[in-house]
Amino acid sequence: MDKRITLRHGDGGLQTNKLIRNIFYKHFDNEILTGYQDSAIFQMEAGRLAYTTDSFVVKPIFFPGGDIGKLAVCGTVNDLAAAGAVPLYLSAGFVIEEGFEIEKLDMIAKSMSDICKKVGAKIVAGDTKVVEKGLVDGVYINTSGIGRVHEFFNPRHITSGDEIILTGTIGEHGTTILLERNDLRLQGDFKSDCNPLSEIIYELGDSIKYVKLMRDPTRGGVANALCEISESHNIGAIIEEEKLQIRSAVKSVHELLGTDPLYFASEGRMILVVEKGFGTNILNMINTLDNCHNSRIIGKFDKSYSKVCLRTSLGGERILTMLENQMISRIC
Amino acid sequence: MDKRITLRHGDGGLQTNKLIRNIFYKHFDNEILTGYQDSAIFQMEAGRLAYTTDSFVVKPIFFPGGDIGKLAVCGTVNDLAAAGAVPLYLSAGFVIEEGFEIEKLDMIAKSMSDICKKVGAKIVAGDTKVVEKGLVDGVYINTSGIGRVHEFFNPRHITSGDEIILTGTIGEHGTTILLERNDLRLQGDFKSDCNPLSEIIYELGDSIKYVKLMRDPTRGGVANALCEISESHNIGAIIEEEKLQIRSAVKSVHELLGTDPLYFASEGRMILVVEKGFGTNILNMINTLDNCHNSRIIGKFDKSYSKVCLRTSLGGERILTMLENQMISRIC
Repeated sequence: MDKRITLRHGDGGLQTNKLIRNIFYKHFDNEILTGYQDSAIFQMEAGRLAYTTDSFVVKPIFFPGGDIGKLAVCGTVNDLAAAGAVPLYLSAGFVIEEGFEIEKLDMIAKSMSDICKKVGAKIVAGDTKVVEKGLVDGVYINTSGIGRVHEFFNPRHITSGDEIILTGTIGEHGTTILLERNDLRLQGDFKSDCNPLSEIIYELGDSIKYVKLMRDPTRGGVANALCEISESHNIGAIIEEEKLQIRSAVKSVHELLGTDPLYFASEGRMILVVEKGFGTNILNMINTLDNCHNSRIIGKFDKSYSKVCLRTSLGGERILTMLENQMISRIC
Repeated sequence: MDKRITLRHGDGGLQTNKLIRNIFYKHFDNEILTGYQDSAIFQMEAGRLAYTTDSFVVKPIFFPGGDIGKLAVCGTVNDLAAAGAVPLYLSAGFVIEEGFEIEKLDMIAKSMSDICKKVGAKIVAGDTKVVEKGLVDGVYINTSGIGRVHEFFNPRHITSGDEIILTGTIGEHGTTILLERNDLRLQGDFKSDCNPLSEIIYELGDSIKYVKLMRDPTRGGVANALCEISESHNIGAIIEEEKLQIRSAVKSVHELLGTDPLYFASEGRMILVVEKGFGTNILNMINTLDNCHNSRIIGKFDKSYSKVCLRTSLGGERILTMLENQMISRIC
């Protein structure tokens, strides 16, 4: 087998077929993804489906805690989870740079397959394009996904008193990419939090009826996600800074750089807005999960605020505004 | 509004939201694609679904007969059609180069919307990423799509005597891109055949039961598509060269360049393999359609051949082999 990707791997002919068989079919093998057909066909029961897409252009493509493949599948799986859905079928479109090492592509495909197995999803449709050297940094991946929405999940308008749960520490993915990109060798165990969150949907079961909205705080971080929710539901919120968990190494980096971890992406955390009075119940359920054991109620929506406010540890209040200018691009 | 894309349009903050509202929501407006949610949610009846994805990296992004947006939606719609499905929901992921003109993005989004309206599909999920100047040539688009498979479509094993219909002239998309790319100013009306083909599924109705397989001959053209079908069904075929329709301007280009239009992509044609004896019936139905009025039976599968053979106008026979090396990359 060739060691590196050539333009011929993208022309739709023999080389493309070989690449698809040797890498993608090997890792994504399932009964639907077979043959030369351009569409997957499967039977679907009646019900509500969730459907999402994301393109991934992260730089670097391998980073502590993951790679672009893991990130792509987790991103799509978590977008589905935010819609109250468990993932069923995924698609994967690769745009690969001429000269890219096929061994790396193999590692990326394996990462994708590993997460799929973990969450019970299947990659059933794919596409491979190759572009000339210098365009794209190695590989870009688009994933889309179809999930089944839990029958009891009913996204509703947020009202005053609804509680806000965050399922763990913040800003780890964005901070890790920032450090990797700038080749900063700081002390501390920096690692992306990139992880799939479908377990939330499975764990909540019928109790998902108390969840009014979910959102994974990726680009723009927890602050931006809360601002968007606040704006679209036309209600302010109050967040307790002391409830926010930031790993000390992450905190140090941001103190050093003068940046705000609240605006840095997580790729394995979920914000849940829970009906007033049910926050603790929901918290106790998801706190048992592998990727959510640091969940906390971080605040609540409150009609006496018109914006998202952060009550600082010192007792002051600071308005969180929508992200205006991220200092780092291509974090996902 | 800004005139050009900046990295800030891809950071997930205010600028991203503005761009999405001003361009994508404006053109793709529908009741499912709204709000800040990362997943679309919709009700689906029980049945067979088709699901497909393609990434588009065509260069140039505007060409006679279309642009990358039209190409992306047609590509996905036609992959669904090849699975016997009418398109319902599409996703669109954009990777945009810093500095790209927003006006061009607007034109591309409009092209996508126009085709969606024509075929009754909706773009319900999207994503926008921005990469630094010099990466990607303007914009790459990934589309995925979900369609409903016609209840009477039943892909089956091909047997000897099954007839092969091609819905029009060949190689026009690939040839047009080749000329544009090399800035060859040749006489003749060169234009991509890029067009949506869902009308075939609607027109055939229950008669689709006589269709054993469909394939749109994109990358690798008609020859490669037939070779793939032949290989996966383990049966040869005989194609009559005189039944193949090649526009004279296209023919002249390939005579000049010594290339074979049979390996050049179409983006608005379909190959239908029809049960022996029903070819003429099916042909008469689809010949009435806007994008299929030059349909012909071009040959048949035949167990006395082990490969795909072309019977030339002079009476000789030539084996068509799988594409080994396309002379032009990034045609879609």
